[in-house]
Amino acid sequence: MSRFFSEKYAFLEPYTPGEQPQDRRYIKLNTNESPFPLSSFAAKEAEEASGRMQLYPDPECGELVRTAAAVYGLNENEMLFTNGSDEALNFAFMAYCSDAKPAVFPNITYGFYPVFAEINSVPYVEIPLREDFTIRIEDYFRTGKTVFLANPNAPTGIALKRGEIEEILKQNRDSVIVIDEAYVDFGAESCIPLIHGYENLLVVQTFSKSRSMAGARLGFAAGNPSLIEDLRTIKYSTNPYNINRFTMAAGIGVLKDEEYTARNCAAIREIRSYTADELKKLGFIMTDSLSNFLFVRHPHISGEKLYLRLKEKGILIRHFSKEEIREYNRITIGRKEDMEILTKAIREILEENV
Amino acid sequence: MSRFFSEKYAFLEPYTPGEQPQDRRYIKLNTNESPFPLSSFAAKEAEEASGRMQLYPDPECGELVRTAAAVYGLNENEMLFTNGSDEALNFAFMAYCSDAKPAVFPNITYGFYPVFAEINSVPYVEIPLREDFTIRIEDYFRTGKTVFLANPNAPTGIALKRGEIEEILKQNRDSVIVIDEAYVDFGAESCIPLIHGYENLLVVQTFSKSRSMAGARLGFAAGNPSLIEDLRTIKYSTNPYNINRFTMAAGIGVLKDEEYTARNCAAIREIRSYTADELKKLGFIMTDSLSNFLFVRHPHISGEKLYLRLKEKGILIRHFSKEEIREYNRITIGRKEDMEILTKAIREILEENV
Repeated sequence: MSRFFSEKYAFLEPYTPGEQPQDRRYIKLNTNESPFPLSSFAAKEAEEASGRMQLYPDPECGELVRTAAAVYGLNENEMLFTNGSDEALNFAFMAYCSDAKPAVFPNITYGFYPVFAEINSVPYVEIPLREDFTIRIEDYFRTGKTVFLANPNAPTGIALKRGEIEEILKQNRDSVIVIDEAYVDFGAESCIPLIHGYENLLVVQTFSKSRSMAGARLGFAAGNPSLIEDLRTIKYSTNPYNINRFTMAAGIGVLKDEEYTARNCAAIREIRSYTADELKKLGFIMTDSLSNFLFVRHPHISGEKLYLRLKEKGILIRHFSKEEIREYNRITIGRKEDMEILTKAIREILEENV
Repeated sequence: MSRFFSEKYAFLEPYTPGEQPQDRRYIKLNTNESPFPLSSFAAKEAEEASGRMQLYPDPECGELVRTAAAVYGLNENEMLFTNGSDEALNFAFMAYCSDAKPAVFPNITYGFYPVFAEINSVPYVEIPLREDFTIRIEDYFRTGKTVFLANPNAPTGIALKRGEIEEILKQNRDSVIVIDEAYVDFGAESCIPLIHGYENLLVVQTFSKSRSMAGARLGFAAGNPSLIEDLRTIKYSTNPYNINRFTMAAGIGVLKDEEYTARNCAAIREIRSYTADELKKLGFIMTDSLSNFLFVRHPHISGEKLYLRLKEKGILIRHFSKEEIREYNRITIGRKEDMEILTKAIREILEENV
């Protein structure tokens, strides 16, 4: 830290992203990326965008918004695209939280929420999950606060039903409810169909997971036009050209190749089911995940030890040091062959551990 | 605006970017883009990046930083890349301004500075330029404020010499001086060589202009390691994966193709000189621009009228409504043939105006 750094940020603890090792090739099951490559149609569209790269991108993202609105059944003024969904979440903390309107979210959820609250000097409350890691919806009734819920939740993978979130919306008419649907395409119910009924609903999604675009950085917020207008004000006051031409073209391309995304999501669900069965056979306990990851623990080996031993064997999974979940690990669903290597490696580790 | 929008931002007036019309093909001389395409080597590198687009990009931007540090004669811990230079500027307003440390900049400069100040709730002072649009460096001595200077300045194109900025640095040992060098590659002196001598210097540059990457969004901040550490704290608290894989690959590619950039910059300088001569022959008055644009007025036609008449003829230039400069227009230097069409069109407009 320099001696010039604003006091406001001096004690900030930044978010720690999952390891992105550049040194050797791991089987990467630690940051919930897709094991499938970018749609070749989308890659071709991005390549063609090179030809006009000397010109600023369309700050309105017109064609991208038109294409996406048609896919999601929304109007064009109900969507705003961002440089990854983290940017949309940060905008939502900026727009809808203040001293008078603190943020509220579960104590176990996406680890970036407290950081967004801190950097925006916003007070926040963390509500404990039930012991089985489920969310008690009544805890979010009449909070008087801006609610942030990842659905499915991370790193548990457990999803609320749309009807449950609708209850929360009804019980908080004067607060914005932000539903972070990063993992929704792997089996949970999206709240996008509720947007026309609830002016206090903001849905955030990402193209990083189901659409194989983690490297391209594209996310969006969807909500009623006046909420989107708020987020636009923030975008145009920080970084109007936040979406580059490559990513915009790839995003349009991938939306025109819905069949590819659907096939990949179906494959992930199938491999998730296979992997869950294999790990259960090995004695693992796990939540009922509707995401592209499993959240697991084993009675005979600590979460940290399993993580470290797998890393030695060239397989990265995600371990969290947080007290309540330190016996767990989060394992991304990869290709079937990767999961076979994983279960074989885990079997070896468990055997040497006896 | 929604009824949920934080009071803090309710009265924000967002920045208005230059027109990016999607309807018809204009000769675009309004947003200081390069008329030359992205380096074909860089385009090829970006294309190859598609193959790993399902994986998050390196949040440290390791290879990009290594490549850039070598080109700019800096150490790797002296640079931070951002999603366009606007993001770097916003980070600097966040990091180095506060109620106790207001911002200060000229009254005529990049129009985004007041917006960055407003969105960060930072007080700011605008210091008038001299009547000839030059900056009086003594106005920035012992300010007790964080200084933002575009060099060359926008939209005037007038540059301070490195020695003059060094004076400002010496006279503000306890304040950060941010030098925004968006246009420096077209003939002005960069302050990057001063970084090792002044811990209070932050230089911001962009790949949008001289490197033909406006569409790809890439900028950077350079300064002593503790300043860069501050900006990293902000990046990792808002958007750790701010640079996507396409842009990162293109950025590395363009830095490996320095000869192409140098040739394009030389061409712009030559066409600038040609265009200035032609416009002077037509009676225009202009500043001494070291940028990729000219800042001009004509005694016999208003700035707004010239702008509107050129737009009708399919040529976009930039008009600003701000009182002090409303008789002026900013004209980007394009290809020689574009500038010939421009001067021909202006000649016609001046004739019909007699």
